[in-house]
Amino acid sequence: MLRVGLLGAGRIGQVHAVNIAGHMGSELVAVSDVNMDAATALATKFGAKACSSEEILADDSIDAVLVATSTDTHSDFIEAATAAGKAVLCEKPVDLSLARAKACLEKSAATGKPVMIGFNRRFDPNFASVKSASLAGEIGKSELLSITSFDPAPPPVSYIKVSGGLFRDMMIHDFDMANFLMGDLPKTVRAVGSSIVDPAIGEAGDVDTAVVTLTYADGRIAVIKNSRRAVYGYDQRVELLGSDGLLSAANMLENTVSKSTVAGVTSAKPTYFFLERYMPAYAAEWDAFVTALAEGKPMPVTLEDGIAALAMAEAATESAKTGAAVEVAL
Amino acid sequence: MLRVGLLGAGRIGQVHAVNIAGHMGSELVAVSDVNMDAATALATKFGAKACSSEEILADDSIDAVLVATSTDTHSDFIEAATAAGKAVLCEKPVDLSLARAKACLEKSAATGKPVMIGFNRRFDPNFASVKSASLAGEIGKSELLSITSFDPAPPPVSYIKVSGGLFRDMMIHDFDMANFLMGDLPKTVRAVGSSIVDPAIGEAGDVDTAVVTLTYADGRIAVIKNSRRAVYGYDQRVELLGSDGLLSAANMLENTVSKSTVAGVTSAKPTYFFLERYMPAYAAEWDAFVTALAEGKPMPVTLEDGIAALAMAEAATESAKTGAAVEVAL
Amino acid sequence: MLRVGLLGAGRIGQVHAVNIAGHMGSELVAVSDVNMDAATALATKFGAKACSSEEILADDSIDAVLVATSTDTHSDFIEAATAAGKAVLCEKPVDLSLARAKACLEKSAATGKPVMIGFNRRFDPNFASVKSASLAGEIGKSELLSITSFDPAPPPVSYIKVSGGLFRDMMIHDFDMANFLMGDLPKTVRAVGSSIVDPAIGEAGDVDTAVVTLTYADGRIAVIKNSRRAVYGYDQRVELLGSDGLLSAANMLENTVSKSTVAGVTSAKPTYFFLERYMPAYAAEWDAFVTALAEGKPMPVTLEDGIAALAMAEAATESAKTGAAVEVAL
Amino acid sequence: MLRVGLLGAGRIGQVHAVNIAGHMGSELVAVSDVNMDAATALATKFGAKACSSEEILADDSIDAVLVATSTDTHSDFIEAATAAGKAVLCEKPVDLSLARAKACLEKSAATGKPVMIGFNRRFDPNFASVKSASLAGEIGKSELLSITSFDPAPPPVSYIKVSGGLFRDMMIHDFDMANFLMGDLPKTVRAVGSSIVDPAIGEAGDVDTAVVTLTYADGRIAVIKNSRRAVYGYDQRVELLGSDGLLSAANMLENTVSKSTVAGVTSAKPTYFFLERYMPAYAAEWDAFVTALAEGKPMPVTLEDGIAALAMAEAATESAKTGAAVEVAL
Repeated sequence: MLRVGLLGAGRIGQVHAVNIAGHMGSELVAVSDVNMDAATALATKFGAKACSSEEILADDSIDAVLVATSTDTHSDFIEAATAAGKAVLCEKPVDLSLARAKACLEKSAATGKPVMIGFNRRFDPNFASVKSASLAGEIGKSELLSITSFDPAPPPVSYIKVSGGLFRDMMIHDFDMANFLMGDLPKTVRAVGSSIVDPAIGEAGDVDTAVVTLTYADGRIAVIKNSRRAVYGYDQRVELLGSDGLLSAANMLENTVSKSTVAGVTSAKPTYFFLERYMPAYAAEWDAFVTALAEGKPMPVTLEDGIAALAMAEAATESAKTGAAVEVAL
Repeated sequence: MLRVGLLGAGRIGQVHAVNIAGHMGSELVAVSDVNMDAATALATKFGAKACSSEEILADDSIDAVLVATSTDTHSDFIEAATAAGKAVLCEKPVDLSLARAKACLEKSAATGKPVMIGFNRRFDPNFASVKSASLAGEIGKSELLSITSFDPAPPPVSYIKVSGGLFRDMMIHDFDMANFLMGDLPKTVRAVGSSIVDPAIGEAGDVDTAVVTLTYADGRIAVIKNSRRAVYGYDQRVELLGSDGLLSAANMLENTVSKSTVAGVTSAKPTYFFLERYMPAYAAEWDAFVTALAEGKPMPVTLEDGIAALAMAEAATESAKTGAAVEVAL
Repeated sequence: MLRVGLLGAGRIGQVHAVNIAGHMGSELVAVSDVNMDAATALATKFGAKACSSEEILADDSIDAVLVATSTDTHSDFIEAATAAGKAVLCEKPVDLSLARAKACLEKSAATGKPVMIGFNRRFDPNFASVKSASLAGEIGKSELLSITSFDPAPPPVSYIKVSGGLFRDMMIHDFDMANFLMGDLPKTVRAVGSSIVDPAIGEAGDVDTAVVTLTYADGRIAVIKNSRRAVYGYDQRVELLGSDGLLSAANMLENTVSKSTVAGVTSAKPTYFFLERYMPAYAAEWDAFVTALAEGKPMPVTLEDGIAALAMAEAATESAKTGAAVEVAL
Repeated sequence: MLRVGLLGAGRIGQVHAVNIAGHMGSELVAVSDVNMDAATALATKFGAKACSSEEILADDSIDAVLVATSTDTHSDFIEAATAAGKAVLCEKPVDLSLARAKACLEKSAATGKPVMIGFNRRFDPNFASVKSASLAGEIGKSELLSITSFDPAPPPVSYIKVSGGLFRDMMIHDFDMANFLMGDLPKTVRAVGSSIVDPAIGEAGDVDTAVVTLTYADGRIAVIKNSRRAVYGYDQRVELLGSDGLLSAANMLENTVSKSTVAGVTSAKPTYFFLERYMPAYAAEWDAFVTALAEGKPMPVTLEDGIAALAMAEAATESAKTGAAVEVAL
């Protein structure tokens, strides 16, 4: 039984708490949060203790920590937790700074403790099915990947300002998805962006609509489309064209009902946002972490994966500014 | 080149005229209609002559006639045309009277001339694909057939009164579809009906909503649903469950566009009515007739098929009245 | 906090245990089972006590019991639990005997304690959405209901023999769905059945494929199709035609991936069976029970509902035997 | 009645011949082709005369010509036909050389005769529906356009060599579609391309897989994906994201049948290639030409439209070579 400490009792921490407690191979032992009331409420519900993050890291009976705190603390907690001898599952991104993330990798790798980065979408049953079908050769050699990734509504501009920008904050998931589905890093990144959804986002120095083209050493191409606003819900799709066919993952819908009237045929919208869409993915992600630890296998998503996505985000940010193609530098 | 006379220049006659003239193996030579202006207009457009039906039947240069006149003349024209040595493609139904249809079969069969009944739905690419997949054993042994067949709007009550009733006028197509897809005639017919769409239809002695269950000697079952009104368009679907799977033919839609908004996802309605939905089927039907004649093969749909569907309609009419199961008598 | 005793620790009992323990308003206090090991395992996992059903019924600290035992014990437990002052959620069916179910209603009603019957499908988000759209008048006046309900594979013949037959064991869910969606009981039942999937089922006196037609006093019609075998998975769909349109609930699929190759476009199958398909429905069902108790509202599904479905099953069983229409007698 | 001469009796000329002859407002009078046998066969079938292109241009009784000859003759025929006082519908592209196309525009515009370019996809019912819904404001302000356009199989390398390259030969349709749906020309073109489908195409100096990003002065973005090979058929889709929703045009399928088995659910492929997919579009295109002439309205697609698409193709060709963004210069 894996004894787990949860750092962060916010919205995503609560999702993880349910999965940790509900998993047959793990137990939620302790919860910390900068807001002690939040930590206490969550801990109580699952019979865990509420305490400080320092206490969790110092508790030798705790095998693993799940880091669900604010982004600026991720690197520090990864380093501290591995130094304390714990396995770590840390929410993405590793850090907003590529240099800091690399330093974190160096330091944590030295401890030999396993670190997994929470790119939850890899565990979405739809995207995972695309990956396994591609690996199985069902569409031959992959050639052209297309990722559509639209949020239902833009976050507040105050958030935008500290987010690191669309490429680091939002498209980073899609960069990892490209790495996951293509099984390789791109050579070059070309990005265009626009603040057409909300000029205030542009005034804050960010874009809200962007298209990024990735080219690979072997001639393959990937394209990622992001928008901060799709009023009909969370639009999360991928298409992978190969020499023998096309794999396509469509959205999950709120229900399967259609209504046919003189006005047309109306069906349900996509599930609203990431908590609804990726709820099964979070559970599968946790299971993958627990299983890899139990079996002594490599982490299914590594710190290196987190760094690769971050490097692509940096390249895209630069490309969108300069208009030029940018090589991905790791 | 098959030289063809067309009897009937109404709406469906015009559809046939285009197919006859456009087919590489046939030529539209003459057109007749009780409304001579209609015959003239249609004939002119396609370089044919307008004349009386008697002249068409007497013209030895004409190889085949297509009967697209009113139902009460079908039997007479089939008999007269075969007696005149012509191949016949006659619109359904053969007749509203089973006895009359049987007499027509006897008389026309004696001439040895081929007669095809226009059950156009057999040539719909979707239903034809269900049939060929079923014949190819793709779902194993068929067990349970379900036919959904709704018109967009009821005809005028004046038409209802002379139509022979829903089972002879509307469901007769579905009876033939059952015979086509099941490859056998049912043993027993059970029908329930209601005039829930329009009480005036009930007052005219007919039903506008009906469900018929067919049972077969080998234990298979089929169910047919009819409604005179589906406000969203012509709803024409079949499902065939077999030991190894399910074949399902969905509606054809006006276009492939969907619109996703906060109100849901809206897509196009089914094509509005039979002329839109079955336009390709009419062309394929004509091609099947011309090809069978050219190759000396049996008619793809026979007078016997028309009589079988009519016998089922009679049984259903009786069952809906008495509430009892009725054996199909040929 | 509702304190709950669970009678029955089998497959469906385990599903309920998770929902009881996971619900914010309920607590799993005790578990009983004829197999004490099963009760102990389940109780331990959720911090409840394992004990006998008698102990649960005698424990005054327990507010409600969930009856998930074998069908033949349902009536007895409903009576005993209500007599012991507990609210009851009992799995369907109430009993295989209509007379016994009616006696159970009389006895338990006298206690004044609330009893809910577990027709879980009413809480499926898809069917619930059809119901609410229909109630909201989105398709006008309902006219014709069609229910498709196929199991993936037939149960063992040994089970068939004690099941009460397809109409009581399997179609009873669909009878309740008809009652739910039509908001009324049918007047007449017509059933045809066949043992075409497996002759051994016929030899055991049951059918494996059946079509039932229901007619209503106001002229509406419903048709239910059942098969014990749909090799592609659990096929659970409804269609409701109304004066202003059609509501249609399709299957839930294993994932949203499609693969396009020279062989066609392949997508995922329906979720395999009831545990997969109705997992969200079981949670919603439990929530509805807890909420109704907390708010002092009527049970969302009553013992009377269970008896109505059973009466329809008896009528269908008779109709399939005699071939005649049978009036529904409550 | 518009009297029409057809230049070119090849595959696409035959499609046009049927539409010209079948249209109520036009008549096919003459057919020319470098292969006189082809011209004669086609002319005979429709009661037209076979003759040289010179004779057609010299025939004052001919009101309009449809140019369906090889690309290198388009500009010359447009100039000659307008000079001869005829209206022209010319297949795309105007020319492979932007300079030549501009000269053609200048010369033909001087005659005052109407010239329409055959961007048939604008008349596809699906894309036309996206356009009209967008114009009607159904998704608010458009922001991000995505065009997927894959051919089923690459043409022979011999054709590639004289085609002008993927951007001029294949993507030119998609450039026009972008212009059509966005209602504006892009400011900048960024292209990446690869010969991953067939290295021989790369050796011939062309690409077979490409992604082009278009940016607009008002901040909108469009992305076009091309592949010369989608083994499952002609993949022709568009998606337009706007402030109030998404419009999406899916492929047209060979039929509506799906088959559910243990192996999954299989449905039909997209219609195979442009003749199948765009057959209705060609008829609608011809109707638009005839109607505009009859009503004295502007051509629905102009020579300027042809030049705009060509200018984008030139920019894309350059961008794919240099790796830099290229401004669109008209």
